[in-house]
Amino acid sequence: MTTGKINVSVENIFPLIKKFLYSDHEIFLRELVSNATDATIKLKHLTSIGEAKVEYGNPIIEVKIDKEGKKLHITDQGLGMTAEEVEKYINQIAFSGAEEFLEKYKDSAKDSGVIGHFGLGFYSAFMVAEKVEIITKSYKDEPAAHWTCDGSPEFTLEPHDKSERGTEIILHIAEDSLEFLEERRIRELLVKYNKFMPVPIKFGTRKEALPKPEDAGDDYKTEYKEVDNIINNPNPAWTKQPADLTDDDYRNFYRELYPMQFDEPLFNIHLNVDYPFNLTGILYFPKMSADLQIQKDKIQLYQNQVFVTDNVEGIVPEFLTMLKGVIDSPDIPLNVSRSYLQADGAVKKISNYITRKVADKLKSLFTENREDFEQKWNDIKIVLEYGMLSEPKFYEKAGAFVLYPTVDKKYYTLDELKGAIKDQQTDKDGKLVVLYASNEDAQHSYIDLAKEKGYEVLLLDSPIVSHLIQKLEADNENLTFTRVDSDHIDNLIKKEDSQLSKLSDEEKENLKTVLEELVPKTTYTVQLEAMDSKTAPFIITQPEFMRRMKEMSQTGGGMFGMSNFPEMYNLVVNTNSDLASAILSEKDKTVQENLVKQALDLAKLSQGLLKGEDLTAFVKRSFELIK
Amino acid sequence: MTTGKINVSVENIFPLIKKFLYSDHEIFLRELVSNATDATIKLKHLTSIGEAKVEYGNPIIEVKIDKEGKKLHITDQGLGMTAEEVEKYINQIAFSGAEEFLEKYKDSAKDSGVIGHFGLGFYSAFMVAEKVEIITKSYKDEPAAHWTCDGSPEFTLEPHDKSERGTEIILHIAEDSLEFLEERRIRELLVKYNKFMPVPIKFGTRKEALPKPEDAGDDYKTEYKEVDNIINNPNPAWTKQPADLTDDDYRNFYRELYPMQFDEPLFNIHLNVDYPFNLTGILYFPKMSADLQIQKDKIQLYQNQVFVTDNVEGIVPEFLTMLKGVIDSPDIPLNVSRSYLQADGAVKKISNYITRKVADKLKSLFTENREDFEQKWNDIKIVLEYGMLSEPKFYEKAGAFVLYPTVDKKYYTLDELKGAIKDQQTDKDGKLVVLYASNEDAQHSYIDLAKEKGYEVLLLDSPIVSHLIQKLEADNENLTFTRVDSDHIDNLIKKEDSQLSKLSDEEKENLKTVLEELVPKTTYTVQLEAMDSKTAPFIITQPEFMRRMKEMSQTGGGMFGMSNFPEMYNLVVNTNSDLASAILSEKDKTVQENLVKQALDLAKLSQGLLKGEDLTAFVKRSFELIK
Repeated sequence: MTTGKINVSVENIFPLIKKFLYSDHEIFLRELVSNATDATIKLKHLTSIGEAKVEYGNPIIEVKIDKEGKKLHITDQGLGMTAEEVEKYINQIAFSGAEEFLEKYKDSAKDSGVIGHFGLGFYSAFMVAEKVEIITKSYKDEPAAHWTCDGSPEFTLEPHDKSERGTEIILHIAEDSLEFLEERRIRELLVKYNKFMPVPIKFGTRKEALPKPEDAGDDYKTEYKEVDNIINNPNPAWTKQPADLTDDDYRNFYRELYPMQFDEPLFNIHLNVDYPFNLTGILYFPKMSADLQIQKDKIQLYQNQVFVTDNVEGIVPEFLTMLKGVIDSPDIPLNVSRSYLQADGAVKKISNYITRKVADKLKSLFTENREDFEQKWNDIKIVLEYGMLSEPKFYEKAGAFVLYPTVDKKYYTLDELKGAIKDQQTDKDGKLVVLYASNEDAQHSYIDLAKEKGYEVLLLDSPIVSHLIQKLEADNENLTFTRVDSDHIDNLIKKEDSQLSKLSDEEKENLKTVLEELVPKTTYTVQLEAMDSKTAPFIITQPEFMRRMKEMSQTGGGMFGMSNFPEMYNLVVNTNSDLASAILSEKDKTVQENLVKQALDLAKLSQGLLKGEDLTAFVKRSFELIK
Repeated sequence: MTTGKINVSVENIFPLIKKFLYSDHEIFLRELVSNATDATIKLKHLTSIGEAKVEYGNPIIEVKIDKEGKKLHITDQGLGMTAEEVEKYINQIAFSGAEEFLEKYKDSAKDSGVIGHFGLGFYSAFMVAEKVEIITKSYKDEPAAHWTCDGSPEFTLEPHDKSERGTEIILHIAEDSLEFLEERRIRELLVKYNKFMPVPIKFGTRKEALPKPEDAGDDYKTEYKEVDNIINNPNPAWTKQPADLTDDDYRNFYRELYPMQFDEPLFNIHLNVDYPFNLTGILYFPKMSADLQIQKDKIQLYQNQVFVTDNVEGIVPEFLTMLKGVIDSPDIPLNVSRSYLQADGAVKKISNYITRKVADKLKSLFTENREDFEQKWNDIKIVLEYGMLSEPKFYEKAGAFVLYPTVDKKYYTLDELKGAIKDQQTDKDGKLVVLYASNEDAQHSYIDLAKEKGYEVLLLDSPIVSHLIQKLEADNENLTFTRVDSDHIDNLIKKEDSQLSKLSDEEKENLKTVLEELVPKTTYTVQLEAMDSKTAPFIITQPEFMRRMKEMSQTGGGMFGMSNFPEMYNLVVNTNSDLASAILSEKDKTVQENLVKQALDLAKLSQGLLKGEDLTAFVKRSFELIK
């Protein structure tokens, strides 16, 4: 039996890094600027605990393009490296400098925000460079070192005369990566990945107007000076305490995050937790746009102020992916599959924490300024309703702030609604019947009738509302939802009292025979009802159950295949109406037929069912009538 | 100056592989089965050229779960390895065995379909296993070897008494990966990644009924035998020649690809090219569902019969991502960013080839059986129209087969259409005016009028049609598209002849004054026209330009912000109608107002503009009229 050590063939490690390390080559800049930030923050920490006896000062990081020389420079003023450290951290791939540093200064380093894993990220430089140089001078009193490597495993290391503290990385950009010598491209990457990193990053200079001298004449021309162009905001709002931020600060940060968008957020939720995991961030409720798909994936995920991704699927509960904002957490595992993320206990805790914080914030917004909350309801309801359906923990809390608006713009919580309609809308079996409309325009005549009866009519127009009311009915005994056009007005909420019929049973039988001959059986079931004589003579209704199941099926769920069922309606004929009597007594068959036809057309109009050829004929007939 | 070799710290390579090699742990099984397939096909090749003097036979690969022992076995009957080869291929990470093999047998191996890069993929086993064993016996006359490694870089290697040729990999599944001991999970992975791999893969056994003996009595009970359960189809349709496949074969393969879907494909396109790149595959035109988003990403991408992904964005032109089927090509670079893919020359060529093949196939389908093509038009048009807008090369070819259907279900090519309407629909300026409707129901009365005039009316109801006609107008001189409701019938196609007006100029002036007082100015512009007295007295039209720009803006493109413009209509009043005279001569202001109101309501009905409260009032009024 032999034993031995697996050997990594170094000649093959560079192609491996190029191929597998990151699928996006542009990541190299994020990694190098992270390393530079890391080196700066480490120095800050060492000076603060007295370990490094140097002046920390106001260090910056500079990114510079040398287009002619085909070089890209990244220079920091951090702790630098001695030749020995270069040997250790750079020449040994996959040796994580940050880990060793954290090990050594465990307690004091905890809050210093060390970012990167120096070592591995550095090698991403070879994805875009054919040769890489490091010129570095340690904060320790040792000579600077100059390391060069052309991507083969061979390197050279020699002394250098660099006198300022810090590290300069020089990338000799490869022919297939010349895009990274374009100012626009580099600016784009710095803005994407490093916009909120904690050390100022200089990229070029810009002109700043000098103040006008007091003694300047009318012909004074503004003078300018060149100043460093700092590309990042090292202290973004989410790193501060909520108590230190005004409403304006939050709004301005929203602008900073989405400079190309012109909407105002409705409100924000500041996340801030350090046990049992670390997480900060600010979530914004935006105004919802019509296209919910476009709305998604606007939340940006950071790790210690370094941008990672704008795909937070699995980390944020799905119903909240329609929000905007940032989340920053070093505790979210990256480079793992989404299915792994969803199964991970820590990530599940993060997701639950966010859900709870959002629910708490909504409750306090509702309690503190109900009027304002009501005004925002229309923009936030889809998120909340979706949350109630998908997150049991959110559903439990939602009762305290979820609103049910009426067509008259009153807003009830579910408990308030029950109280308000108890007297009028309890049916003879003791069930509380909630009436609702899904479209004020299309169901106008039905809403009108219900309001005349003194009923409240909710306006529930979200696409997923059929699922929501199905759930509410299941969880609330003796509560039932019925759309205003699902039955005729006297039947919507069944009471003991019944209307007397003008027609005898025989007359009714005759009327029914006449109607069933003239009305298409496949679509309409004729139903005679003795109603108030002033109520419309013909009304078309669509039973709640079938319609709701169809709607649920169309939006996912409900009974499988229901969405392809044909539409079925009831034609309710008011036997107490004058028209019913007129139809019954009409002897001329043609006149009788025309009466029924016109009345059916009018009932169809009210339900939005009169279309195409039928509508054209109806309009033509009606023009004849008035000319 | 020092020089040296960069050293890869082996202790850190395993965490690196776990973290970076693949983001999806489940990939390990694909890699191991690929290696097994690779070893089998290599053996086939060596026996076929006489290099290996052994019987190839009918080798299979077996995957077996040992739940109690927490082990997963993958066993092949391929060429196996000697102890020396294990040392070389396994103990040296990132040494690609397949590359060396290809180098050695360059010419003869070219078509043998060697898949994997043995070496690297193998190590993915450590993503799910705490310990891995290899027991392998080479086809060469040498003793078997037994290699063991627990994920630290230490391994052991000793002789083994295995006597059958081939390699067995034993994974001791780690505690956090126990899912990979579930039969359902492994079956799912084999079906996902290995369903069409070229060597049979056995996973368990199944019962197969024995044939009924001839002398069996009535009480014969079917008897069963255990047979190998082969999970894959080693010879999928796309690897065969089109000439060897029937229509049924293509349909059956569609079933194989999408066992959970019950639709029939409309037709297929067999791709088969080996220069300048290698690509095979079968694309299917499915029936389009209403939700185009759901439709996307159904094409599966393979490399040498190994499933890679169902995201073919960047490889297939975007308009074809709504198709279904498979593409198999070893020439598509993986593990690279999408933006890189889109810029890659080879990938661009592949995309162009696919576009050309699809266009050629469509042309031949059209030519060979036009009637059938017309019947399928409604299901394929959205793909083709989108292709015309997004791919210039497709647009060039599309003239030969893209159809323009009329509301009467005639189907014209653009050239045929021009010929058919030239006489009737050329206006006084020599422009050819194509009339179209977007909705037969909603525009019924306008379509009727146009047909009465002898005009052809196209039915163009795709969501992107406004973009398409904008493009057609730009590319075809003197061709213009106008929707049937964009002007009144006499103005849709302006001819020299004009109708005489019954009303004098003064009467017209008076009528206009009356109407402008009663009709809301913000929405309607009153326009008096002398038309046929039988034409409707009031008609609402919506000018083509504004409406089209709004539609283009809503579906992306057109003029920015147009989608928020208010709707603007013309109210065309036929001065030759009896109603116009009646309104003009009516002295009672209330009656006059009611006449205008009812006429406007009827015109709004025809345009689908009468809604909500106005509609309820209209219906009520109309019931009064007939009772």
